[in-house]
Amino acid sequence: MSNSSNNQNQFANKSQAWSARFTEPVSDLVKRYTASVDFDKRLALFDIQGSLAHAKMLATVGVISSEDQDAIERGMQQIIGEIEADQFEWLLDLEDVHLNIEKRLVEIIGDAGKRLHTGRSRNDQVATDIRLWLRSEIDQSAELLVELQKNLAALALEHADTILPGFTHLQVAQPVTFGHHLLAYAEMFNRDHERLLDCRKRVNRLPLGAAALAGTSYPIDRELTAQLLGFDEVCRNSLDAVSDRDFAIEFCAAAALIMTHISRLSEELIIWMSPRVGFIELADRFCTGSSIMPQKKNPDVPELARGKTGRVNGHLIALLTLMKGQPLAYNKDNQEDKEGLFDAADTIRDTLTIFVDMVSGIRVKADAMRAAALQGFATATDLADYLVKKGLPFRDAHETVALAVRECEQKGCDLADLSLAELQAFHPSIEEDIFGVLTLEGSVAARNHLGGTAPERVRIEAQRILDN
Amino acid sequence: MSNSSNNQNQFANKSQAWSARFTEPVSDLVKRYTASVDFDKRLALFDIQGSLAHAKMLATVGVISSEDQDAIERGMQQIIGEIEADQFEWLLDLEDVHLNIEKRLVEIIGDAGKRLHTGRSRNDQVATDIRLWLRSEIDQSAELLVELQKNLAALALEHADTILPGFTHLQVAQPVTFGHHLLAYAEMFNRDHERLLDCRKRVNRLPLGAAALAGTSYPIDRELTAQLLGFDEVCRNSLDAVSDRDFAIEFCAAAALIMTHISRLSEELIIWMSPRVGFIELADRFCTGSSIMPQKKNPDVPELARGKTGRVNGHLIALLTLMKGQPLAYNKDNQEDKEGLFDAADTIRDTLTIFVDMVSGIRVKADAMRAAALQGFATATDLADYLVKKGLPFRDAHETVALAVRECEQKGCDLADLSLAELQAFHPSIEEDIFGVLTLEGSVAARNHLGGTAPERVRIEAQRILDN
Amino acid sequence: MSNSSNNQNQFANKSQAWSARFTEPVSDLVKRYTASVDFDKRLALFDIQGSLAHAKMLATVGVISSEDQDAIERGMQQIIGEIEADQFEWLLDLEDVHLNIEKRLVEIIGDAGKRLHTGRSRNDQVATDIRLWLRSEIDQSAELLVELQKNLAALALEHADTILPGFTHLQVAQPVTFGHHLLAYAEMFNRDHERLLDCRKRVNRLPLGAAALAGTSYPIDRELTAQLLGFDEVCRNSLDAVSDRDFAIEFCAAAALIMTHISRLSEELIIWMSPRVGFIELADRFCTGSSIMPQKKNPDVPELARGKTGRVNGHLIALLTLMKGQPLAYNKDNQEDKEGLFDAADTIRDTLTIFVDMVSGIRVKADAMRAAALQGFATATDLADYLVKKGLPFRDAHETVALAVRECEQKGCDLADLSLAELQAFHPSIEEDIFGVLTLEGSVAARNHLGGTAPERVRIEAQRILDN
Amino acid sequence: MSNSSNNQNQFANKSQAWSARFTEPVSDLVKRYTASVDFDKRLALFDIQGSLAHAKMLATVGVISSEDQDAIERGMQQIIGEIEADQFEWLLDLEDVHLNIEKRLVEIIGDAGKRLHTGRSRNDQVATDIRLWLRSEIDQSAELLVELQKNLAALALEHADTILPGFTHLQVAQPVTFGHHLLAYAEMFNRDHERLLDCRKRVNRLPLGAAALAGTSYPIDRELTAQLLGFDEVCRNSLDAVSDRDFAIEFCAAAALIMTHISRLSEELIIWMSPRVGFIELADRFCTGSSIMPQKKNPDVPELARGKTGRVNGHLIALLTLMKGQPLAYNKDNQEDKEGLFDAADTIRDTLTIFVDMVSGIRVKADAMRAAALQGFATATDLADYLVKKGLPFRDAHETVALAVRECEQKGCDLADLSLAELQAFHPSIEEDIFGVLTLEGSVAARNHLGGTAPERVRIEAQRILDN
Repeated sequence: MSNSSNNQNQFANKSQAWSARFTEPVSDLVKRYTASVDFDKRLALFDIQGSLAHAKMLATVGVISSEDQDAIERGMQQIIGEIEADQFEWLLDLEDVHLNIEKRLVEIIGDAGKRLHTGRSRNDQVATDIRLWLRSEIDQSAELLVELQKNLAALALEHADTILPGFTHLQVAQPVTFGHHLLAYAEMFNRDHERLLDCRKRVNRLPLGAAALAGTSYPIDRELTAQLLGFDEVCRNSLDAVSDRDFAIEFCAAAALIMTHISRLSEELIIWMSPRVGFIELADRFCTGSSIMPQKKNPDVPELARGKTGRVNGHLIALLTLMKGQPLAYNKDNQEDKEGLFDAADTIRDTLTIFVDMVSGIRVKADAMRAAALQGFATATDLADYLVKKGLPFRDAHETVALAVRECEQKGCDLADLSLAELQAFHPSIEEDIFGVLTLEGSVAARNHLGGTAPERVRIEAQRILDN
Repeated sequence: MSNSSNNQNQFANKSQAWSARFTEPVSDLVKRYTASVDFDKRLALFDIQGSLAHAKMLATVGVISSEDQDAIERGMQQIIGEIEADQFEWLLDLEDVHLNIEKRLVEIIGDAGKRLHTGRSRNDQVATDIRLWLRSEIDQSAELLVELQKNLAALALEHADTILPGFTHLQVAQPVTFGHHLLAYAEMFNRDHERLLDCRKRVNRLPLGAAALAGTSYPIDRELTAQLLGFDEVCRNSLDAVSDRDFAIEFCAAAALIMTHISRLSEELIIWMSPRVGFIELADRFCTGSSIMPQKKNPDVPELARGKTGRVNGHLIALLTLMKGQPLAYNKDNQEDKEGLFDAADTIRDTLTIFVDMVSGIRVKADAMRAAALQGFATATDLADYLVKKGLPFRDAHETVALAVRECEQKGCDLADLSLAELQAFHPSIEEDIFGVLTLEGSVAARNHLGGTAPERVRIEAQRILDN
Repeated sequence: MSNSSNNQNQFANKSQAWSARFTEPVSDLVKRYTASVDFDKRLALFDIQGSLAHAKMLATVGVISSEDQDAIERGMQQIIGEIEADQFEWLLDLEDVHLNIEKRLVEIIGDAGKRLHTGRSRNDQVATDIRLWLRSEIDQSAELLVELQKNLAALALEHADTILPGFTHLQVAQPVTFGHHLLAYAEMFNRDHERLLDCRKRVNRLPLGAAALAGTSYPIDRELTAQLLGFDEVCRNSLDAVSDRDFAIEFCAAAALIMTHISRLSEELIIWMSPRVGFIELADRFCTGSSIMPQKKNPDVPELARGKTGRVNGHLIALLTLMKGQPLAYNKDNQEDKEGLFDAADTIRDTLTIFVDMVSGIRVKADAMRAAALQGFATATDLADYLVKKGLPFRDAHETVALAVRECEQKGCDLADLSLAELQAFHPSIEEDIFGVLTLEGSVAARNHLGGTAPERVRIEAQRILDN
Repeated sequence: MSNSSNNQNQFANKSQAWSARFTEPVSDLVKRYTASVDFDKRLALFDIQGSLAHAKMLATVGVISSEDQDAIERGMQQIIGEIEADQFEWLLDLEDVHLNIEKRLVEIIGDAGKRLHTGRSRNDQVATDIRLWLRSEIDQSAELLVELQKNLAALALEHADTILPGFTHLQVAQPVTFGHHLLAYAEMFNRDHERLLDCRKRVNRLPLGAAALAGTSYPIDRELTAQLLGFDEVCRNSLDAVSDRDFAIEFCAAAALIMTHISRLSEELIIWMSPRVGFIELADRFCTGSSIMPQKKNPDVPELARGKTGRVNGHLIALLTLMKGQPLAYNKDNQEDKEGLFDAADTIRDTLTIFVDMVSGIRVKADAMRAAALQGFATATDLADYLVKKGLPFRDAHETVALAVRECEQKGCDLADLSLAELQAFHPSIEEDIFGVLTLEGSVAARNHLGGTAPERVRIEAQRILDN
């Protein structure tokens, strides 16, 4: 933790800067163990963005001169160029992204660079960097979630009339439309989108100005800094601001739910592609084959995505464990917040990007779906409901259906294959209109209320999503 | 999973109801393994609430008669009375809370009771019950979070001027006010409150009407049911509605953060009560003693609360593991959603209730705090800032401070104990006003910006919370 | 925590016993929050077992008289009777199982009961109780794991020749025997058995004698107590002995792996029972039906078992979170070790008990398995291996197979359905013996090495397990 | 997943090798998403070790010629040289470490390289590589655990007589020796060592020969391969062998316990270094300072180590989540097993390496420890025990002590500071020998049984560890 207003000399030899209390240098292993630059350099552009706003604020309130501010902006532009050209030299000895950039700035612009750190510390600086970076990640993944919903809705619209068996317990229950099935996932991803935006509110608050832990004696204007950086609010307590990692945990929890939904969809894609089921094919670019078994086409992407659920759950637990029982304010433990968070954000962004594309490439085998829906007396419920509407007590209706199913099993046919006379033998109230009820089409069309599986309803819902 | 519109006879012998396919009864261990009534009976009143709204909707759209609805309401009132008087007989054979209540209803009112289950299934019924129950839990815990913030703010107001050392790395860093320290926790609990309300939006949606998985062929009016039950929205996809447990996971994630904050506060309370620190005492009613060691006063409640962080993290992981890779729609796995969720809700409610009271009973030992703040050169930063404001380059200022600190260490005194002449020996720019800077009071008063530790600022923030 | 050698009076009013430092009683909620008797009373018989050994040791070394020891044994026998007859009155006011039993003992035998607590404390007493209880649980579950392996082996022996498709990525890869598939799970449960026994070594060490944290000034003989209780070793450090919960965590980790294996087997049972696959049926007593859909037979037990994986993973994380960062020695946090541990032990015991029975009740549909194995060119690898053995470079062999598969796809037949002439058109080195290679039987029989799927090998392995 | 006996051409264009079923190439993002070479190249030398043993076995049983074997050995030596010189070119297009090495081998030695893959697949190959690598990691960390115990024991021997307060609930309980306190951690690390060796038994089994999933039709000798690679046993079921990741989970669980112990020790080191406690100092090379606050010396290493507990817990959960519900045999999910496992192994190895060194550099401030032990009536238990031994009923003894403590509190002195006459005023049975009992030395010396805190006992235990 550094509270320096300026720290040029320490760049040369950090432990010298720690006053005379230190009598031996840090060993190489300890240096590697405690350094973060290997992973936090990805924050570089956000670090610079935060520094530029800080400098502008300092100049506005008169803590630094406008010449200093100009120099800082000039120097930072050069550094951005070096980083983008991959010419920036990252030094492990300088521990982290902040000191690496600050040292380079001082090399380029001299004394003005030394004044940049006035009124801030690495504690509030790194908290600001992470929030800026995470806000950007949230915006990207939120956009991908919208695209994914739309691609699901487009496929749902195309398959509003395609019927497959609806499963409970992986047993055939009732017929549903494939469009309706796809829209169930659109609902999940919609909630994920909501959650990311809710999380964003708490990410988008400015910790800068908390300094090491207590605030600073310089007359800083935190609202101005917040405004320059697009933050909605200012963290209202300095001790909390430097030690709060709620936003990282909340993001990982939202990411874990995204991956949970991805894992459920993946499980279904894998089962649907299995030859015994054969409901769909995925586009080849998401699969691998086998050099020896020419018949194989393996759904690698859904499998890997299903597996990646684990790593995001793991990062969530890692962060919760990290923060458990930590006293105020900043402790070095907090440096452990980054790698898991980075990986969680990468995982959902990459996975969503691929799924947006993969969903559109699903090839539906409607015949196999239909054959499966016809196999398991999926419309037995409809027959019972029909009888109840005719006035039968439910229990009698149910027994009637059970007898009819048993007869079909013996005959090796479906309910709809019985003749009217055969059906009437089970109950005289059955009339010609029963055949509309017993078909797959009749069954799904009847469930035409908000949330139901009817094709008409699927079209309305899919269109609503596409029009959003 | 049952999709029965009515199921009287099955109460007598459930497996008989499952048609002729079943040739042997479920064993006692399997019955116990698969039953949920032991833990889901706590949903009873919410189950009845949902049934009453469902009955009213059915009557409104004409699926049942108003006489049936009246009978259902009358029967349910009697059942509520029996449950509240603890005279209701819960039967393991009837598996769950739903069948237990429905059987009793049929006993009391006969055929009308058999019509209640029209157009719904246990799948959407249990999802509705949990949401109603969880909404109530959220409202209670959200209220407790507000009370806790207010009690923290009241204590902060009282101790806006009390100074203790601010720690980073558990080392003395800079002086802070105790009020400011307390308000850091108020910020955390405020975010927890926000998160619960965000979660509530997604809890407060109606799954009822999804029936088993596909919706129903009865002309139900789900918006009406939602309105009767105070739900903000209707779940828009039946497959999702019966299998969605996001809301439970999101709640557990919010609960895990609440307990994480509680664990941090607890850790500090425990350290503060340790005799080597001695900053506070907790009221006796939150402590235990030892029958053999008369000197002991153990902070049992904060310790236990810190430990309970584990169980809530555990429930979160349990639910995430549960949902990973589950295909649509309802699977029996989902029955495992309840016990952990119930325990998470109980844990935060009980813990917050106790902390609301315990926080008010903190006795502050201001002298010990002050003595500790004076011990570790906590105002060294202030001296450096003073010199920088006098125009010194930061590096020179820092070396000057390091020399002064070393002299104090040799003399066994603090910086503020040096005479002006002694200080000026370190640098001639030091003047009489330095003593205002070097005092604890001067240090904290200088950090008077939004988020800073200054007493004036603490009073503003505390009052703001109290006025909310 | 109490280190009392005696604590009669405290039973009347515990807080009075805590000397004059306590000025107010504990509130009812705090009492409930901190009490453990609701869940730790299941340790009662182990608590008594530990007390009896402790008393015998105290008498042997002369700290108590043999008359006292006799009285303690007599009193404890009475208490055991009361507990077994469910006539023992558990009081929340007495906090935990230990004080409840001790108070009752003093009521029955007077002063001798007050001497029982000499040289021990609740800290080492509870640690001893849990270890005795857990050892018993491990022994039960280890025995169940052996039974489960034997039942799997018996079924494997029966189906050493039954062929189903071996899947990778849920795609048909190569034919395997169902016996071989079942034995894969026997291997997993065998490792689980090993792990439980390894864990048992570390459970089976005596903490008693550590007293509150530092040992005792009485001349106790811990090896004697260990011997009386069947412990293999004595915990060698008192501070560690009272605060160690490694054994609980290690057990939960082993339990999590057991449930992971159960979840994998369950997933397969569920898929195999799904009508599109139809490889097996489970006995009715492990399934439920639907009162409305007579065609349904839901694999409730495997689904619920798969879901219960989550709760055991959760308990593991709860315990790891609990112990993270806890300073020595005993802290009240540790009381949180029990509920999760109890539930983890119950979960694996109940689940294994049911699976032992359920595995034996699997009805295999060998025709469906065979039909599936014939569907996906599962012996393509065998044709390539055949050609390589005939001297073809692998790449040429592979291309030859690919061409043959393509021809079969066009003809809608399998490789084995081609005539010798047709096959020779692909490569002249193919001879009559190819048909032995291309059959399912030839394919599995060829893999007759240790670990391979050949029927002969399956019989050897299954018999080995049955003979153990 | 590849089951190829040979796969030269696929190196040129992998998707071409997957027969005509694939109509489009894998996109760049999918390629990156599914490739593992970035992280699995650390397995390279183990991959080669496994290949060499496989080749030797193939030559021994006559599947390849001895010329081929010689060529493979020669080629692999060259590749080892290239890897060690960092001149090996890793290609993302070749997906993983196995294909990268195999392609290079074929480039160097031609056709013989193509025969290496005979009788194996990537599925069993990668499982073998991970086990060889993990075995090596276990051996390194096990050795570090021994060193750590010895360094703790050496320090304990040095401080067998140094007394500090033993805490329960972070309240002063009874005096203990610092040596005894350190040995508590030696016990923990000893259990960790046991657990790693138990885990090693299950790691050290050979999966090679399982091929893709079913074994191979080549006449392989798996016992020979096992012997060549130093494996204790052969995995007895091919389906299990390619899909088992128990060993990785078991290792992570053991690693999580190691880090839990590290976190507890770290917590104590941090508290002990806090200025209000001041029991120890850590060597400077494990700390950082602050460029602005010259008084700061931050225990960065223990803090960071405490934080790293989270990531190992996270990896454990990630792997458990990964394996939950996976059907047999290999699925692409399993590729996710590596990164977390690698990181867990690195974390414990680096952390233990640093702690081995750090423990030896602890500087003990015995005066501060002693002062703290004298502060809280830590010997009150000893006075009560003294009175009980004199024949007093425990309750009377306790009240006597309580009165004496109260008097001391008023006088501001400790029990040992009272005169004999003053003590006798509390009870006449108190004699001159009481002062031996009331001193810190007397208290600790009295606890001289196996596991007790007496200096004599500490010396025995410490020496035992050093002599191991």
